[in-house]
Amino acid sequence: MTSSLPTPADLSTHIGRGLSDLRDLVALQSVSAQGRMLPETAAFVTRLLEAEGFTVRSYPGEVAPVLVAEAGEGPATLLIYNHYDVQPEDPAELWESPPFTLTERDGRLYGRGASDDKGEFAARLAAVRAVRERHGGRLPLRVRWLIEGEEEVGSPSLERFVAEHAQELRADGCWWEFGSIDPDGRPVLSLGLKGVMCVELRCRVAASDLHSSLGAVIDNPLYRLARAVASLRDDGGRVTIPGFHDDVREPSAADLAALARIPGDGQAVRETYGVTRPLATGPAYHGRLNLAPVVNVNGWGGGYGGEGSKTVLPAHGFVKLDFRLVPGQDPARVLGLLRAHLDAQGLTDVELVELEAHQKPARVEAGHPFVRACVAAAREAHGAEPVVQPSSGGSGPMYPFQALGVACVAAGIGNVGGRVHAPNENIVRDHFEKGVVFGVALLEGLSRGE
Amino acid sequence: MTSSLPTPADLSTHIGRGLSDLRDLVALQSVSAQGRMLPETAAFVTRLLEAEGFTVRSYPGEVAPVLVAEAGEGPATLLIYNHYDVQPEDPAELWESPPFTLTERDGRLYGRGASDDKGEFAARLAAVRAVRERHGGRLPLRVRWLIEGEEEVGSPSLERFVAEHAQELRADGCWWEFGSIDPDGRPVLSLGLKGVMCVELRCRVAASDLHSSLGAVIDNPLYRLARAVASLRDDGGRVTIPGFHDDVREPSAADLAALARIPGDGQAVRETYGVTRPLATGPAYHGRLNLAPVVNVNGWGGGYGGEGSKTVLPAHGFVKLDFRLVPGQDPARVLGLLRAHLDAQGLTDVELVELEAHQKPARVEAGHPFVRACVAAAREAHGAEPVVQPSSGGSGPMYPFQALGVACVAAGIGNVGGRVHAPNENIVRDHFEKGVVFGVALLEGLSRGE
Repeated sequence: MTSSLPTPADLSTHIGRGLSDLRDLVALQSVSAQGRMLPETAAFVTRLLEAEGFTVRSYPGEVAPVLVAEAGEGPATLLIYNHYDVQPEDPAELWESPPFTLTERDGRLYGRGASDDKGEFAARLAAVRAVRERHGGRLPLRVRWLIEGEEEVGSPSLERFVAEHAQELRADGCWWEFGSIDPDGRPVLSLGLKGVMCVELRCRVAASDLHSSLGAVIDNPLYRLARAVASLRDDGGRVTIPGFHDDVREPSAADLAALARIPGDGQAVRETYGVTRPLATGPAYHGRLNLAPVVNVNGWGGGYGGEGSKTVLPAHGFVKLDFRLVPGQDPARVLGLLRAHLDAQGLTDVELVELEAHQKPARVEAGHPFVRACVAAAREAHGAEPVVQPSSGGSGPMYPFQALGVACVAAGIGNVGGRVHAPNENIVRDHFEKGVVFGVALLEGLSRGE
Repeated sequence: MTSSLPTPADLSTHIGRGLSDLRDLVALQSVSAQGRMLPETAAFVTRLLEAEGFTVRSYPGEVAPVLVAEAGEGPATLLIYNHYDVQPEDPAELWESPPFTLTERDGRLYGRGASDDKGEFAARLAAVRAVRERHGGRLPLRVRWLIEGEEEVGSPSLERFVAEHAQELRADGCWWEFGSIDPDGRPVLSLGLKGVMCVELRCRVAASDLHSSLGAVIDNPLYRLARAVASLRDDGGRVTIPGFHDDVREPSAADLAALARIPGDGQAVRETYGVTRPLATGPAYHGRLNLAPVVNVNGWGGGYGGEGSKTVLPAHGFVKLDFRLVPGQDPARVLGLLRAHLDAQGLTDVELVELEAHQKPARVEAGHPFVRACVAAAREAHGAEPVVQPSSGGSGPMYPFQALGVACVAAGIGNVGGRVHAPNENIVRDHFEKGVVFGVALLEGLSRGE
């Protein structure tokens, strides 16, 4: 056993095996939205883990088996969360190489799941193998690994599963399923995820569409919905529902310090997407992205949407919204505030429909010991100062783990051009290699109590 | 010659010929939107008119010939406006009898154009024949007849044509192309049409759609458009664009008196369409329908409109609007007020696009001598007190005639279940017969200077 960190060259055998595992995993078309090859992929993952000394228990989920694996012994316990399911490959014709064949081009590895989430899993497993080898075949800490197959369909079993298996999942920290490396080679660690609540507003004024000349005497459902939408935020993007901000937890001094150290102000995002109406630039950019609760209009419909004009008074219409929530906010309470707000605006006729299960917000404070362990390992593995985000702008099922008292940190091998959920999903090969080194550094550090 | 009005029984020969003409006209599939059989139909109409002593001139229109016919001599000149084109028969499978075969069922005559506008033309031509017969083969007044073939595609040639042929079209009044008989057998006369201006609002915030987590830092085009729509009117339906109402011409005492005599308050319309959000009931119903300028939201699009949720931040969106304008208002000026209003609201990024040619509002005062002549003829022909609407809630190309100083009155044979523009278009046979009697009464009355 040695405490000096190996280089990718030192780990070339493990990296090679990790990429071979990834190739096999990408070939398994485990598309949860379509119920494709989920038990087969769970069985393959089980065999990989058992080969490294893990005890693996499989539990039935709503769509696919939930796997809980455990191995090792030591002063620290690390929980790892990953998923073996992937998004559909559609539109398949836009892939430059077959989506389920891992293909290397120009230093990148392409394939569905290469990044999300099979590449993350394979790199972590390679790190576990390397650590076992360095310790004579045993793991010097307890590793608990939760791997589900329903993440891409909203993790319908997870919240209940985690609560019911609290004892099996107890840990000093949870290594979250994703993470990224920025264009300057800095590892980006996220300490939280926003909650999300998806709803639809609906309004109906008549049983069938009418000629718009009757708009003089019959109300317009799209006007009603427009008024509802316009009342939800101000031009700066701040949500204006009374009481909405009351429960928002103030960021800690450590959170604010981390925020202030995030480089850039979103200029790269604005250039990539041709953004003409930013809501925040400069120092406000990362503040809003990490900490602001937000309402988004995702789409709307009703009436005539084709070419030219049609003088119709639509009978009904709808608007789809998502709310991104931050720690302290509770989706059920926000739903109640929204209903009360619509009623107070005289919009009692606007129906409010929940579209899918909510996800609650979660965030660990930047000063938490597990955060410090992840930051130290990332600094060592990448030879660069990590970027610590108090929260991702996105959402995911982190809250159930936080409810167990387990701090979650997202650290991984994604990249800004990784095309996750899209054709030509990829990782940078060098990031995979550094990811294995990071895994070794994290496990070794935790096992030494650092 | 006699001044006592004939009954339908007295006119049975003319009514029979009128229905035979209508059968021939319906069989001609003169769908202007598809350019079908327009010259053939124009030629057939020309032969019908020439057989009654009319001189017919044919002028090229943008889509179909414009016909101007003239016959008769006397102290009065009547202009009649009709069109020989029809709407497409789609969806053809919903017709209970072939759309281009006039078919009688249960006292109604079904077929495309039976009401709009071939039935109106055939009834009027039958009346002209009867009047000629009653006067020894000559017409005791000058009849000018403008019959176009582009009405169902927005009359693109008409405004300019009327202005350029002012001399040929001069008259004491214009008998407008449509009109109706209410469920209680009362003839409904309309003295005006609202103007219409169709526009689209568009907003774009980025070159491509984004993940909605970026909604924290990038604006939302559907919010921008919702705020624009919400700013255009109040909950009572009154347009709130500054200056919008400044030019509205006040209704005359005669207009208000006519309005007060309109029976009902729209309850039948609300029941027919299952209306749950009326804007006006009771005495306000006809006031708003006849006299109020209105903004309608016809439809909108942008982002995700399918089942369930999708956490997308749309790159762009649009809203389609129509404005119904009343006399005194000018579409070009309203367009400028709308742009200024959006700018004043900080919505300079919301693009304003005109969708098609505007139609200006037109209305003749209820006290006009030609209105009195029409009311007297309707009362006599139907044996019921006519309902006089200062304006229809709908729109049409009436303004160019008014600009020549010709008062237009809509009086005709439509019915509330007539399914104009829809499958199973129809007229009530009894209304056709009474329509011929009304035509005789009107022509005789005008020829006597009443």
